[in-house]
Amino acid sequence: MSIVDLKKEGDVFILTMQSGENRFNPTFIDAMNQALDTVEKSSGPAALVSTGGEAKFYSNGLDLAWLAGVGEKERDQFVKSVLKFLGRLMAFPIPTVAAINGHVFAAGAMLALAYDFRVMRADRGFFCLPEVDIHIPLAPGMTALIKSQLSPNVFRYCILTGARIGGIEAKELGIVDEAVPAEQVLPQAMARAVSMANKGRDIYGTLKRGMYAEAIALLESGAVILP
Amino acid sequence: MSIVDLKKEGDVFILTMQSGENRFNPTFIDAMNQALDTVEKSSGPAALVSTGGEAKFYSNGLDLAWLAGVGEKERDQFVKSVLKFLGRLMAFPIPTVAAINGHVFAAGAMLALAYDFRVMRADRGFFCLPEVDIHIPLAPGMTALIKSQLSPNVFRYCILTGARIGGIEAKELGIVDEAVPAEQVLPQAMARAVSMANKGRDIYGTLKRGMYAEAIALLESGAVILP
Amino acid sequence: MSIVDLKKEGDVFILTMQSGENRFNPTFIDAMNQALDTVEKSSGPAALVSTGGEAKFYSNGLDLAWLAGVGEKERDQFVKSVLKFLGRLMAFPIPTVAAINGHVFAAGAMLALAYDFRVMRADRGFFCLPEVDIHIPLAPGMTALIKSQLSPNVFRYCILTGARIGGIEAKELGIVDEAVPAEQVLPQAMARAVSMANKGRDIYGTLKRGMYAEAIALLESGAVILP
Amino acid sequence: MSIVDLKKEGDVFILTMQSGENRFNPTFIDAMNQALDTVEKSSGPAALVSTGGEAKFYSNGLDLAWLAGVGEKERDQFVKSVLKFLGRLMAFPIPTVAAINGHVFAAGAMLALAYDFRVMRADRGFFCLPEVDIHIPLAPGMTALIKSQLSPNVFRYCILTGARIGGIEAKELGIVDEAVPAEQVLPQAMARAVSMANKGRDIYGTLKRGMYAEAIALLESGAVILP
Amino acid sequence: MSIVDLKKEGDVFILTMQSGENRFNPTFIDAMNQALDTVEKSSGPAALVSTGGEAKFYSNGLDLAWLAGVGEKERDQFVKSVLKFLGRLMAFPIPTVAAINGHVFAAGAMLALAYDFRVMRADRGFFCLPEVDIHIPLAPGMTALIKSQLSPNVFRYCILTGARIGGIEAKELGIVDEAVPAEQVLPQAMARAVSMANKGRDIYGTLKRGMYAEAIALLESGAVILP
Amino acid sequence: MSIVDLKKEGDVFILTMQSGENRFNPTFIDAMNQALDTVEKSSGPAALVSTGGEAKFYSNGLDLAWLAGVGEKERDQFVKSVLKFLGRLMAFPIPTVAAINGHVFAAGAMLALAYDFRVMRADRGFFCLPEVDIHIPLAPGMTALIKSQLSPNVFRYCILTGARIGGIEAKELGIVDEAVPAEQVLPQAMARAVSMANKGRDIYGTLKRGMYAEAIALLESGAVILP
Repeated sequence: MSIVDLKKEGDVFILTMQSGENRFNPTFIDAMNQALDTVEKSSGPAALVSTGGEAKFYSNGLDLAWLAGVGEKERDQFVKSVLKFLGRLMAFPIPTVAAINGHVFAAGAMLALAYDFRVMRADRGFFCLPEVDIHIPLAPGMTALIKSQLSPNVFRYCILTGARIGGIEAKELGIVDEAVPAEQVLPQAMARAVSMANKGRDIYGTLKRGMYAEAIALLESGAVILP
Repeated sequence: MSIVDLKKEGDVFILTMQSGENRFNPTFIDAMNQALDTVEKSSGPAALVSTGGEAKFYSNGLDLAWLAGVGEKERDQFVKSVLKFLGRLMAFPIPTVAAINGHVFAAGAMLALAYDFRVMRADRGFFCLPEVDIHIPLAPGMTALIKSQLSPNVFRYCILTGARIGGIEAKELGIVDEAVPAEQVLPQAMARAVSMANKGRDIYGTLKRGMYAEAIALLESGAVILP
Repeated sequence: MSIVDLKKEGDVFILTMQSGENRFNPTFIDAMNQALDTVEKSSGPAALVSTGGEAKFYSNGLDLAWLAGVGEKERDQFVKSVLKFLGRLMAFPIPTVAAINGHVFAAGAMLALAYDFRVMRADRGFFCLPEVDIHIPLAPGMTALIKSQLSPNVFRYCILTGARIGGIEAKELGIVDEAVPAEQVLPQAMARAVSMANKGRDIYGTLKRGMYAEAIALLESGAVILP
Repeated sequence: MSIVDLKKEGDVFILTMQSGENRFNPTFIDAMNQALDTVEKSSGPAALVSTGGEAKFYSNGLDLAWLAGVGEKERDQFVKSVLKFLGRLMAFPIPTVAAINGHVFAAGAMLALAYDFRVMRADRGFFCLPEVDIHIPLAPGMTALIKSQLSPNVFRYCILTGARIGGIEAKELGIVDEAVPAEQVLPQAMARAVSMANKGRDIYGTLKRGMYAEAIALLESGAVILP
Repeated sequence: MSIVDLKKEGDVFILTMQSGENRFNPTFIDAMNQALDTVEKSSGPAALVSTGGEAKFYSNGLDLAWLAGVGEKERDQFVKSVLKFLGRLMAFPIPTVAAINGHVFAAGAMLALAYDFRVMRADRGFFCLPEVDIHIPLAPGMTALIKSQLSPNVFRYCILTGARIGGIEAKELGIVDEAVPAEQVLPQAMARAVSMANKGRDIYGTLKRGMYAEAIALLESGAVILP
Repeated sequence: MSIVDLKKEGDVFILTMQSGENRFNPTFIDAMNQALDTVEKSSGPAALVSTGGEAKFYSNGLDLAWLAGVGEKERDQFVKSVLKFLGRLMAFPIPTVAAINGHVFAAGAMLALAYDFRVMRADRGFFCLPEVDIHIPLAPGMTALIKSQLSPNVFRYCILTGARIGGIEAKELGIVDEAVPAEQVLPQAMARAVSMANKGRDIYGTLKRGMYAEAIALLESGAVILP
């Protein structure tokens, strides 16, 4: 089974991340980029929905075990590739929807925030930015990404407390667009994607690059804040 | 009947746009600027309320028929004058209230967002940023204007979906300050204007230029994003 | 009785401002900075709660009587010290909670907004940015501080109207995190502080400086807008 | 004799500042703005040359005697009007040349730097930014104005040392475009003005606003740095 | 004969633009981008030198005849592609040298300024930014590109006067790195290229993106200033 | 012998870096910061001159041996402390002069650029930014520091080529203010320092923070660009 599965239903590409916690390491980011390549190379109406292959996880962020082990030597290159990938997703010229079926933690939460829309499972799973508790500074591009999606109070609450926020609360706080029962997460995300699939790619990409200019530029710069 | 009617009730100037859909062409923008000149030259307490002369429309934005016809040669000059006008309105040193009696589409929606306060009709009429569907990029100053008035989620929703948003929803999303029955739109806008008419012009203009510095500078620059 | 009292309960420093309206003059700012010095020099888990010593006031802002009298000669130096102090508080590397027991007006409101969290008394006391009515421009750093904490609509409403906003409304508008009965203001603020006291200082300060980079830099620059 | 004399030779307006040291006070700034109004309202080819009416002075900057006396109450308003005037001159849509016949000190030096071209007397008179020695901070717009005209080394040298720089050195450092004998200052400035008088006003203003966008916006904001 | 010829000598790619005045139209920009693709896809040490195929011209900028004729409908798309191309060249991760064998006018001058180094013919040919005289505003990205390469005085002189600047003067003003006899233009450019061909592509691109971040982002945004 | 020696002659503090190549490691940065502490705590007229204790070296930059060995674990913290130190030096409220007696490489060259004035030995020793050849990206704050001191052409030349630049060329390029025989380096630096020692600290620091606001903020942020 490959790390990422990409299939198409009607005009909607469904990207299933299927490596358990879907933690970011070079293999995962490469697979995600290849999926984006495929979607981008398609023609005609299109939208992208992503989800996790296991019920419990959407993505738990960086693969800390890999980073502390064999990945240590590649840390800088890898972190840069993550930032670049998030920037690519923010600017993606095709509508994107995250079907958040389980936990979104740290870089996994930022991954979800880089999608255009978010549908989250209501009964289980947390949105969490735990950087304050695991002592990892946010890169300027990450801070800008988060700020571009959350209102000032929610931005402050999520980053300063590192709180674990369930689907219902995430909907109330505007972190996600919908919180629905587990079995409706993917269908609702699909419905949003279908309704957006006819947007023109040029204009869609141009609008997003204008809306998120600062975050995209900072992510592409590769800048990080040292701890 | 002139395109724009300006009269004064107590301390409140009432500007009625009365060319049907109130689409922007040079004649319309000139008339609006002249109305602003008159208001600005007045002395003493003052506030400005604007509304549409027909029940159905506040403003539908650029006069695309004119632009595709005789206006084609003047397109650049005209678009620049629109940007400059929106910047002038954002920085206007006298309290402004949009009494949104009908549709506000595209540049018409931005016009409404350039006022200090917005009272919208609840039962009919849509707020809509259709640029994503009509394939027209937003000028950087327009993006900044919209961002200055909407929370991150609403900014994203309006621009990416191009949704038509009725008065009730517009109030819930914070796009407008009030959604009221048709016959109360103007009275409620007037009431807000009356309550604001005693603000000092110097301090009011200074505060607005500080609050909206980036949007005003971008609008005044005349910069547009090419499609 | 000194202007500011600082004591410690468990991991929480409680700073009581006890000069009545707690207006800002050099003595007050010095005392506040000394209290921050003490908190910063401490080691181990820590959080800071501030409150007003009298039931009616948290802080009413600048000491205008002093400024119009003996303070006139020192005005520039003093205003600069206020801006610098607000910047210091925004970047403070230890969790901070304002227990708003009474009025917060003008610079006093900004003081409250420079804390990480705000618990306000529900039954009495107003949050108010009266600059529009007392004809005092906001320094760029103050505008940025306020913008960093309020959603676009609330930012606009507070600054343009100068409205007096009670605790309940302040909670609804997201100006404060909680509005509670008078006797619960300090306990609720304490509870928040306790829950945050274990955050690491380095990461906490780094995250805040990243989140509020623009406001902090503008406050530290000492820039003001002339009326 | 009025403070400022404006006459026209061919396409060139010659503005002679004739109040001795040509220090800035409200009367002086008003007269300068009126002269700019006249030039701006003209039609057809045009350029502007300014010079000092006495051999020894172009302009020595702010009228410190007035500021310390009757002007004290108006200080803020006045300083703001100076910043706004400098911004207007930087963005002036007609070519401008400073014929620097004598000293240019402090705000007088900034005045000279706000012109498009500078011809300085070689044998006598100094360019000097003495703020470091008279303990007056530069407003952000002033710093940006100076930076927009000088190379990094000269920017650093002028501001940090407060050196008095004669015409020859000023030419070598690129502070002025020419250093010539006293009797050639005005003729050379006139020759430059004549050669520029046919530039189109719209494009000339647009290009300058683009080139100096940051300085112009900061000057117009009225921001100052407190000492 | 194709519009652009690309051959390799040792580690140096030599790109010869061979359509006479080498004016920019879609065919030209496409050919240039394809040449950059080829260079970028190569591996090992590499540098790029470009020159004009005719003695008289390096590039005279936009193909105004095409734009006024069949190109009129595609104007926006085309201008955007020019901006994007200039941004790509500024960020190109391989050393680039312009062998300026003849005139560089308008966008052609900006093309030359987007290379890392410039060797110009001393005896004939002009560097000229004639926008002020042909009434064409500079896009913000173009202004930033020019500012990134020229000292403040030269930036001002070139844009405000629209002067035609020969090779010797261009060298004196720092617009080009060398001015040499016609037959040495290409050899000198080659020598520079050879000396730079061993720079690592990753670091070279990263450094350039950092040095020119603002200009590159503005060029990529597609923003233009309306006349 | 301590790493850094600080003594005072008249009003001038002379800081001698005496660890051979004066490479940056935590011990070195701590010693430098302590020296700055001492200078800052002094009262009365003061200026600071720094030089290298050995004839051959001023500073060769980061201690790569330490970083590759025991320092590897502390890399991030250390790099952050270097950025912060450079920012402190750029903003130092007392005149500073680098007496460059020998090589200044990489971070050592940036150290020299963070001083207010530079006197370099003419006959031996190089200024060099070798990052392009040793494949180390410049932190945004470093890029901004270098840009704040060098003209656009020199900025481009130094960073893109990594050239070794002797004292005479460094003077011609404006990298240093003077290039003098070895035995005059310290005396000339002293003379400059003496002439500056009477500047007021408040105004001097305020002016520098205004002139270098962007570089100082980026250095203090701790941001780095990943390779």
